[in-house]
Amino acid sequence: MSALQSLPDRFPSLTADRNATDIAAARARGTCDVEQLADYLYGGREERQLRDCILAILEKEPLFSKAPRYFRSVEEALAAGLAWSRRIIELRDQHRWSGKELELALVLLDEFLPVSIIQPLLRLQCTPEQQQLWLEDAENWRIVGCYAQTELGHGSDLSRLETTATFIEGADEFEISSNGFTGAKWWIGGLGAIATHAIVQARLIIGQKDYGPHMFMVPIRSLEDHRPVSPSITLGNIGPKAFGGTNFVNNGFVYFDRHRIPRAYMLARFARVERDGTYVRPPHAKVGYAGMMLLRISLAQESGWALARAATIAIRYSAVRRQFADAANEEVPVLHYPMVSSRLLPLVAQSHAIIAGGRQLDGLFARLNADLAGNDVRLLPETHALSCCLKSLCTKMAADGMETARRSLGGHGYSAFSGFGIMYGHFVSTNTVEGDNYLITQQTARFLLKILQQHRADPSQALPESADYFGQLDDLLATKCSVADKADWLSADIQQRVMARRAVRLAVELAQLLLQQQQQEHGRIHWSALNVPCWRLSVAHGQCYLARAIATEAAVLARKHSSLAPTMKRLSDLFFLSIVEAHLGDFMEDGSVSPRQAALLRGQLDDTLAELLPEAVRLVDAFDFPDYLLDSALGRRDGQVYRALWDRAMSAPPVNAMRDDTPRSLHDTTPFGYTVMLCCPLIYRDNSTIIAANRNTL
Amino acid sequence: MSALQSLPDRFPSLTADRNATDIAAARARGTCDVEQLADYLYGGREERQLRDCILAILEKEPLFSKAPRYFRSVEEALAAGLAWSRRIIELRDQHRWSGKELELALVLLDEFLPVSIIQPLLRLQCTPEQQQLWLEDAENWRIVGCYAQTELGHGSDLSRLETTATFIEGADEFEISSNGFTGAKWWIGGLGAIATHAIVQARLIIGQKDYGPHMFMVPIRSLEDHRPVSPSITLGNIGPKAFGGTNFVNNGFVYFDRHRIPRAYMLARFARVERDGTYVRPPHAKVGYAGMMLLRISLAQESGWALARAATIAIRYSAVRRQFADAANEEVPVLHYPMVSSRLLPLVAQSHAIIAGGRQLDGLFARLNADLAGNDVRLLPETHALSCCLKSLCTKMAADGMETARRSLGGHGYSAFSGFGIMYGHFVSTNTVEGDNYLITQQTARFLLKILQQHRADPSQALPESADYFGQLDDLLATKCSVADKADWLSADIQQRVMARRAVRLAVELAQLLLQQQQQEHGRIHWSALNVPCWRLSVAHGQCYLARAIATEAAVLARKHSSLAPTMKRLSDLFFLSIVEAHLGDFMEDGSVSPRQAALLRGQLDDTLAELLPEAVRLVDAFDFPDYLLDSALGRRDGQVYRALWDRAMSAPPVNAMRDDTPRSLHDTTPFGYTVMLCCPLIYRDNSTIIAANRNTL
Ligand SMILES: Cc1cc2nc3c(=O)[nH]c(=O)nc-3n(C[C@H](O)[C@H](O)[C@H](O)COP(=O)(O)OP(=O)(O)OC[C@H]3O[C@@H](n4cnc5c(N)ncnc54)[C@H](O)[C@@H]3O)c2cc1C
Ligand SMILES: Cc1cc2nc3c(=O)[nH]c(=O)nc-3n(C[C@H](O)[C@H](O)[C@H](O)COP(=O)(O)OP(=O)(O)OC[C@H]3O[C@@H](n4cnc5c(N)ncnc54)[C@H](O)[C@@H]3O)c2cc1C
Repeated sequence: MSALQSLPDRFPSLTADRNATDIAAARARGTCDVEQLADYLYGGREERQLRDCILAILEKEPLFSKAPRYFRSVEEALAAGLAWSRRIIELRDQHRWSGKELELALVLLDEFLPVSIIQPLLRLQCTPEQQQLWLEDAENWRIVGCYAQTELGHGSDLSRLETTATFIEGADEFEISSNGFTGAKWWIGGLGAIATHAIVQARLIIGQKDYGPHMFMVPIRSLEDHRPVSPSITLGNIGPKAFGGTNFVNNGFVYFDRHRIPRAYMLARFARVERDGTYVRPPHAKVGYAGMMLLRISLAQESGWALARAATIAIRYSAVRRQFADAANEEVPVLHYPMVSSRLLPLVAQSHAIIAGGRQLDGLFARLNADLAGNDVRLLPETHALSCCLKSLCTKMAADGMETARRSLGGHGYSAFSGFGIMYGHFVSTNTVEGDNYLITQQTARFLLKILQQHRADPSQALPESADYFGQLDDLLATKCSVADKADWLSADIQQRVMARRAVRLAVELAQLLLQQQQQEHGRIHWSALNVPCWRLSVAHGQCYLARAIATEAAVLARKHSSLAPTMKRLSDLFFLSIVEAHLGDFMEDGSVSPRQAALLRGQLDDTLAELLPEAVRLVDAFDFPDYLLDSALGRRDGQVYRALWDRAMSAPPVNAMRDDTPRSLHDTTPFGYTVMLCCPLIYRDNSTIIAANRNTL
Repeated sequence: MSALQSLPDRFPSLTADRNATDIAAARARGTCDVEQLADYLYGGREERQLRDCILAILEKEPLFSKAPRYFRSVEEALAAGLAWSRRIIELRDQHRWSGKELELALVLLDEFLPVSIIQPLLRLQCTPEQQQLWLEDAENWRIVGCYAQTELGHGSDLSRLETTATFIEGADEFEISSNGFTGAKWWIGGLGAIATHAIVQARLIIGQKDYGPHMFMVPIRSLEDHRPVSPSITLGNIGPKAFGGTNFVNNGFVYFDRHRIPRAYMLARFARVERDGTYVRPPHAKVGYAGMMLLRISLAQESGWALARAATIAIRYSAVRRQFADAANEEVPVLHYPMVSSRLLPLVAQSHAIIAGGRQLDGLFARLNADLAGNDVRLLPETHALSCCLKSLCTKMAADGMETARRSLGGHGYSAFSGFGIMYGHFVSTNTVEGDNYLITQQTARFLLKILQQHRADPSQALPESADYFGQLDDLLATKCSVADKADWLSADIQQRVMARRAVRLAVELAQLLLQQQQQEHGRIHWSALNVPCWRLSVAHGQCYLARAIATEAAVLARKHSSLAPTMKRLSDLFFLSIVEAHLGDFMEDGSVSPRQAALLRGQLDDTLAELLPEAVRLVDAFDFPDYLLDSALGRRDGQVYRALWDRAMSAPPVNAMRDDTPRSLHDTTPFGYTVMLCCPLIYRDNSTIIAANRNTL
């Protein structure tokens, strides 16, 4: 091994060193202030310092080494997930981390761990007495919870869940039943191996009446021996996931065969069942949405950071990867090819736009929560619609962007050591969970239709901030895009109008379709026939929102740190320009953007890309991801990509032990060596019986 | 286990049975003749029967079970890859399979196996004497070859490879040198564990002169003990790949430290070095391209079938997956939602278009090969350009389509058992290998520019068939799209003109950019500044080609089997319509398609989708994939998706053994049980020392 491992050292003056020079040169090309920008993105220097303190603790833990991550079997990964979960809770207790500090640690670990799934739900859905029963235990890892909504046969449609919770009056209990194997809870994170408690969504049945889905706390595994608490519970693991994603989470199933729980275990902050079977309804229907909204909002926010990670790896690598020589016979960093930079730079702009948009949505949610305390629900529809809209849009943008980034790196992007495979595998599930991305946009579209109706009915009424552009409806539809020169595309006003016009135009068209339908179908509405236009409208609204968010933040930031102004403005422009370019048909098909303006847009896009190119590496440096988090041979801050690829290959488990040390006999004891000897050519000539004997053991 | 496994049987009358009824109903909805269509796609019934014979053989082999595929560690997967390779060769010999039959078997196995990498190269690049040395041995698995071009530091740019082969006159040998660790060959399929021989691309040096890259046969591992043949060779594995993709192939590296081979080992069919160091050049420069073209063409063809697989799984599952009820309170198969069908049906049309286009390109290649035998190279530029164009376009379309399909399936699409994760993981590497997808489109664009120049210089000269529409250049540019009614979008003539106009318009614009550049830069051309417009042109040309290919085949097929005519025409229309919709800006930005026409196009697209919907399951049945090949719980022909998910979860390795049998003591011996006991909540209260002691062994 040692001869191999030292190879890069035997050639110190060659390309590996050029990596270091290249990344330094790429940094020197820009001027933007990395520290200032990073402070801004993280909301202050303290936040970053806090993160670094936690990082230092995690990096000291051998258990938290990321080196083995690509070499584990499914089972080993599940086991590691448990060990990591356990250990992170110990560290939290040892260092007295706050909830937020634990969050920071989990981000750095970069694995989904089933450590705090039900705590938010307990806070939102339980009575104070119920909180006392479970909350502290859950926080202290004395019990581990999971959230069991989805079933084998149903997910999105809560109202058709097969699981029932039937009130048994005399016993003062509920009987939980799966009612058939397709009613088994399925996909439940944490349930596969570790959870002791499940918050189960089940249709509440009292008498013969179905009150629809409600939540029930069901203890499932014994706190003494970890076995199912009753023979009426059958549970297990649902098996591995695509791309080896989220493989630290033990997703599981549970089947209830008329399993009994006390009446007091129905989560009863809003709705409840009295001892005599009286049902007490919640104060308003959507009151249970807060938890879901919170999750969607955090998924939208995470998307920005996830995409930023992908952009960081890709831009750093392509700043040092040289391929083909220019006129001066110098090999060119591939980032300098427009075909590469035009794929990568927009990802940086998108990251910023999503982070900015997520931050604003978060602010809205905070206001809603404050209002809710005073039973004021007015912000609820807007927050709900926007959280659906951005969750859908941003998680898709980030997942697609990751693959755009990876595929722009040539062969090395396909190495597991690039860090991309696992990043995508983990992340892409966000497109499905907490409401399928395509499905939930229907909520946003319906909200916008209501806004449209409201504005038409009474133009003087104030509109929710995120949809206030509907107030300019007539003006927007009456005027065409006024761009006359390519630089006009940089006008913040024009940008906002173009984005807004597309959205209102799509809303008006959708309203017309709806009207047609009602006329043809005698007043009936089939929303399902309209889900494509709903989705298009939601996308348009979300992009409009993000474009405004990044433009606003760029303007604010420019006032605070004038040195950042030009770069932030360009990022904001790039976001706008690349979105319009990607959806050009949408903007042209109502004639609002003319062919000539489209050509000008492409020209401006090229210019903006060229202006941002020198800042590329600084911009991703400002995302300030520690190497430990990126865990990428290609995304290293020091640019030493070849050395990293080399070293990681050399340290790859047993396979490389074969290199210098191929077993000489067929009776070699390492399984891999044995297989090679069985299968490699020399044996074919004379030893097929040995192979036959061993074939089925492989 | 048995209680669990029988659960579906305890509920025979529930949803699982509905699966079977649903898939039957979905089949009954259509009318298209599945058998006729399948015969057509496979080029005849015999081909399908042959495939089924081979299938029967493979399914009998326990080694070829696909059940363990998601549970192997990296090392186990590599070992399995070797064992499978070895066994498939044995079966070939036992059953006397032809090369084509072996191909069919490999397709069914659905794993990249390093069994026939160098044979085509040996045939193309070796003298007859050299073929005698290696070809038969390679075919008989007495030697195993790999193709070593890419290096750690260079891939696409052959001319900058660091590896050299220096002629040593006195010794009549070449000295192969990596010249630094970034010159180590990297990514080489088969080299990581099994290859005994490498065909190495190295710059040929004679005296001080560099003759550029040539191929050399280098024996690397001993046929006696499988060790490196010399201390001047260091080799090993490069580690795992993203998404767990192509994990049966042992991609490896080799480092040459002044390693000697005989002069006779330079592959010398075209160029060679005489004993005295005289270099004999090849007859024409691009003669080495045939091998590369062949690979690109087969990747383009494979893309059609790969996408068809994704469409099959997704359409079958969404025909039985029901979610949300309609007005009649019946739960709706999700395929019936336009948001689902509009994502899935175009994938079927794309598969057909790619298969048709690939077939035609294959015909062109056959003609080229026949011509080459007579030293006629006239078809070479067209074939080269088209193989770059379609390889790039089709592999991207298929990879993207796979994810579109998977993401349209909700949660179960993210299960490994859906079959999608591994399919994508394997397939997406095709976007990078054999010439990066974005890079190679520059070849196509340059070819089309030459066609443009040729036509302008002499309009009477015949144009290559695939670019013959450049002959109508002026007419195309002078007239706008003539669609007046949505049904006009179904006119084959209009479709072809719209596609052709976009391509010629982009070619003319590119030519203008080039001219501008030359004027500004005193005649110099920087192709690299133009690679985005080159790529756009190549995409336009490729889509134009595919649209014509599927339209032509639909017309031919309609004459043969008139019952298939309406469906095939609709598929051809759908391909066209969905491409235009996805790239609408491209078609509108020169004013050729008007806003009104765009709206009509969307209307026609909806209609065509609705017309094809009843045929969906039959259409994918006609791709005729055996369940063994699909290996998908969701894509089963019998529609029993829930039962399959259930059964596969139950049979998942040891994790589920925990279900009924959680160890009772901390000293339980199964490693996973042990971990659970260490990490699960009950221990936290009183046993952290045991955990501390064992932490690092996890
Ligand atoms: C990694 C992962 C972790 C998970 N963890 C949990 C967990 O801890 N607890 C839990 O309860 N669940 C969990 N789930 C399940 C998850 O919440 C659901 O899979 C998700 O909500 C999607 O629901 P579904 O699978 O039923 O999709 P479906 O509703 O079946 O969707 C299938 C397709 O149909 C479309 N569709 C459905 N209805 C309509 C309609 N009306 N109109 C148009 N299109 C429609 C969808 O858009 C989608 O394309 C998890 C899933 C994953 C992948
Ligand atoms: C699974 C797999 C198997 C492989 N098997 C083999 C094998 O058996 N033998 C072998 O020899 N190799 C093999 N390879 C290597 C493969 O052939 C190369 O990775 C591939 O050709 C791409 O080259 P690269 O990695 O150098 O990409 P690069 O050229 O470094 O590309 C990086 C990025 O730069 C862009 N770029 C580069 N040059 C330009 C330009 N002039 N203009 C614009 N953009 C540019 C590319 O488009 C890409 O986006 C394998 C790779 C993989 C992933």
